[in-house]
Amino acid sequence: MRIPKPILNLIEAFERLPGIGPKTAQRLTFYLLHFPVEEIESFADALKNLKSSTKICSVCKIVDETDPCSICEDKARDEDIIVVVSNPLDVFAFEKVGFKGKYHVLHGIIDPLNNIGPEELFINDLIKRIKSGPACAGRMEIVLATNTGMEGESTAMYILKLIRNSGFSEEEVKITRIARGIPVGGDIEYADDVTLTQSFQNRLVY
Amino acid sequence: MRIPKPILNLIEAFERLPGIGPKTAQRLTFYLLHFPVEEIESFADALKNLKSSTKICSVCKIVDETDPCSICEDKARDEDIIVVVSNPLDVFAFEKVGFKGKYHVLHGIIDPLNNIGPEELFINDLIKRIKSGPACAGRMEIVLATNTGMEGESTAMYILKLIRNSGFSEEEVKITRIARGIPVGGDIEYADDVTLTQSFQNRLVY
Repeated sequence: MRIPKPILNLIEAFERLPGIGPKTAQRLTFYLLHFPVEEIESFADALKNLKSSTKICSVCKIVDETDPCSICEDKARDEDIIVVVSNPLDVFAFEKVGFKGKYHVLHGIIDPLNNIGPEELFINDLIKRIKSGPACAGRMEIVLATNTGMEGESTAMYILKLIRNSGFSEEEVKITRIARGIPVGGDIEYADDVTLTQSFQNRLVY
Repeated sequence: MRIPKPILNLIEAFERLPGIGPKTAQRLTFYLLHFPVEEIESFADALKNLKSSTKICSVCKIVDETDPCSICEDKARDEDIIVVVSNPLDVFAFEKVGFKGKYHVLHGIIDPLNNIGPEELFINDLIKRIKSGPACAGRMEIVLATNTGMEGESTAMYILKLIRNSGFSEEEVKITRIARGIPVGGDIEYADDVTLTQSFQNRLVY
């Protein structure tokens, strides 16, 4: 006896998700067999609505129900500081800590090993946005908040150079990078060499 | 800004699955945002078809597209040996190693801490099946193949007693339990005490 086709279809669908291997996909599928029909239906509806009910904001590329998104529409937010992140989830991380400026979501990271180049990301849209923004008044800040791994660093460096090569001087557009160092509550004893070195080099003056 | 409702709905649906916490649910949902619409649709369809296209076999409780299932319908299989397992996935494990008898799926395990008693499982159906089966001819074997943890052992013990109390003698129904011992390729040095003790007590005579 083989696994029946309708079950196999769902197992294969789960397997396409990141971090879900064949065993986990099987376990999830057989677990769902014991779910009430209505709950499975609402799961399926949530899936179908995911893309049909959401839009990518034409300005900042955040995923929201409206375009422009609620953040771009919010007049109370600071227009002059844009946090550049790689994923929509990073936006919610910044929102949670009370950031009140704007965002730009790249939807990925430059990763040549996986064939993701700058053209695959919303990097050129960022340049266009800076050009049309209040940068000429010399007040704009771009905070590069990609992850601090190798791909994140090189993406940040790429964007830094691109903005400068697009003719924006340090007076017109201030470019910053989130600080790297020992996480709050962390032990220096267990810090890795690279982090400790950066943490020392970029020490704060009291 | 909060996470938009359509995205939140899917995150919550994922969170209901076992082993998927809030962070993983978020990651899976945002990953799906980059899927082509057709693939998400087919995922949703696979979910909807999971229950509508499958049945629980009225004889052995296997989940299949037909009732009775393909194993119960297979006349070439040995009718006289029934492997009792707790989950449908266990059936496929036995199928993979070439077992050619029948099965009985309990769909769970006796677990008083989680309010799962014998009535919640297909245990009484097993007794009925033995009564209507070829047991009177004194040739039937019931292999208790529940997991070897505490709940699995007590479920096996419960079924053993229930069959005996239902008036089936050792001559009529032979009841066996899968062997517990050192896994093939395992190191005695690293075996836990209980397993090593059982492995020694139930040593094979060459």
